[in-house]
Amino acid sequence: MKKLKVAQFGLGPIGLESLKLAATQASMEVVGGIDIDPAKVGKSLADLTGVESLRGARVHASFDALFASVHPDVILHTASSSAEATLTQVRGAIDHGLAVASTCEELIFPALKAPALASECDTHCRRTGARVVATGVNPGFVMDVLPLCLTGVSREVRSIYLERVVDASTRRQPLQAKIGSGQDPTEFLAKFKTGKAGHAGFQQSLALVAHALGWRLESVRETCEPVVAQTRIVTKFFDVPAGKSCGIHQRCIGIVGGEPRVVMDLQMYLDAPNPHDAIIIRGRPDLNVTLHGGVAGDDATVAALVNIVPKLLVAPPGLRLMTELALPSWLNPAATAH
Amino acid sequence: MKKLKVAQFGLGPIGLESLKLAATQASMEVVGGIDIDPAKVGKSLADLTGVESLRGARVHASFDALFASVHPDVILHTASSSAEATLTQVRGAIDHGLAVASTCEELIFPALKAPALASECDTHCRRTGARVVATGVNPGFVMDVLPLCLTGVSREVRSIYLERVVDASTRRQPLQAKIGSGQDPTEFLAKFKTGKAGHAGFQQSLALVAHALGWRLESVRETCEPVVAQTRIVTKFFDVPAGKSCGIHQRCIGIVGGEPRVVMDLQMYLDAPNPHDAIIIRGRPDLNVTLHGGVAGDDATVAALVNIVPKLLVAPPGLRLMTELALPSWLNPAATAH
Repeated sequence: MKKLKVAQFGLGPIGLESLKLAATQASMEVVGGIDIDPAKVGKSLADLTGVESLRGARVHASFDALFASVHPDVILHTASSSAEATLTQVRGAIDHGLAVASTCEELIFPALKAPALASECDTHCRRTGARVVATGVNPGFVMDVLPLCLTGVSREVRSIYLERVVDASTRRQPLQAKIGSGQDPTEFLAKFKTGKAGHAGFQQSLALVAHALGWRLESVRETCEPVVAQTRIVTKFFDVPAGKSCGIHQRCIGIVGGEPRVVMDLQMYLDAPNPHDAIIIRGRPDLNVTLHGGVAGDDATVAALVNIVPKLLVAPPGLRLMTELALPSWLNPAATAH
Repeated sequence: MKKLKVAQFGLGPIGLESLKLAATQASMEVVGGIDIDPAKVGKSLADLTGVESLRGARVHASFDALFASVHPDVILHTASSSAEATLTQVRGAIDHGLAVASTCEELIFPALKAPALASECDTHCRRTGARVVATGVNPGFVMDVLPLCLTGVSREVRSIYLERVVDASTRRQPLQAKIGSGQDPTEFLAKFKTGKAGHAGFQQSLALVAHALGWRLESVRETCEPVVAQTRIVTKFFDVPAGKSCGIHQRCIGIVGGEPRVVMDLQMYLDAPNPHDAIIIRGRPDLNVTLHGGVAGDDATVAALVNIVPKLLVAPPGLRLMTELALPSWLNPAATAH
């Protein structure tokens, strides 16, 4: 069987992990990477990942440079949270009719922030035969794809309540920083209000749920409160004194037909007790689901990205939503054909 | 927008409920039914369902009779648990290139019991443009589709444990009968061993999970024990004295690579305490999910059937598995286009 040639766009921590996971797949061959960091360009992916089998694959500065030496089938993209930036970055891949799977949060529902560009890219994809989709854990799974899958057995859905409690002490430094660990609570709040802090992709999850259920969102209310440390909290990366921020409590409510039909509640803070995800669907039947311990972050994000590749490849060309692809499932690394 | 013309094959309790649900859909028009019962043939569906808007739709004895008066786009099939019987029954719909959604348990993974017929039907579907899929709650959701969806965020899956505890006292008479309520435990066991009792579609769920995860099943062990009433149990339909059967404990283990990789455990008995579904996936990350109270039976079965229609219509022609269709989700009855 011919292996899928895979290249990685964005070689930060998540990008390197997704490369390493792709390298374990019998059905995939990693052929190169793209990064704007001049310190990485020209290097072997073996030196960046420690995976010796990637010795021949190199980092390039652009698609043009990549395409000059290799011809990938699939691009894994982990370089931006912005739908506009991502669609601009992967333009070269769309031009060549490739498949692009991205962890871009806003791209989970690109019509929300970049409707004109998303529509134009979709048309362009259909013309070139390219396929683009974004996936992930949140957004991309626990607060959108999974609750939607549950409604597959609903004959009536009145409301959906989604709750996620994450113990941020178990996560990477960038996440602990993103939620404002050690910052002054009022300064953090000011940052959230200008869009410079908080969890990305929250409104995209809500928009995807509403879209898939045929609900017209009349309004969306999003709030974010800092969680303030009651006592000193010391993690591997931060030393937070009492009175400073140790995380966020973010909430998003979607109004449909004058009623709050979708409520999303995210608590992500250092030493949060009882981490879990909960999905409560009021309807017929009622569904009440708990994911004990929640879904662990980075492993799952990287898995979602690599697992979606075979589903994306059999979808019709276009800028796709996760709800338009075949049911997600684990890609067994031993599988040689999909 | 042109409405989808829907006809119902099989007018038992589940068939009538699915008809009634289809009749609430703005995107669907119920145009007729098929049943072999001479007492039903010729009747109006309004008389069978109490839904006055179905006055003009009638029951026919065959596809030929149905097609003589109406031209449906979609067939909802609820007339058999056997893959072979179902594929034979819906042949007329496949000949005409229609879409067929069925609750047939064995059709969840037709290659298990009817590989040659399934393969021939798949080829025939591709030739005529027909699409066929089976769905449901169990099989079709809680022990296959939902756990598979969860593995969409797995970078490694070592084993899957699925547990379902159903309080059969809350269910219909046919289900209470099927699990042996009031029967002699040894007689029930003899019936199970000859395939005349027990829960249908259990092995199909297991086969679907293994197939989607790229696992080759080396062997499958299925056991079924009667649950014996400790005290008298009285339901709406049965009066079970102590010492008689009040339900089943069915277990199915799939061996892959010499290890039990998929374990399914179903307890379905009268007055079962703490009904729930549980999904435990060992891997990276571990996933531990509880559906509190479980997924209530008939409402969910009928919902799964009607909800899958728009997903089936955009799939490529063929005999399809649920894992090949777009993510299941609720079909909003107010939606006029999919």
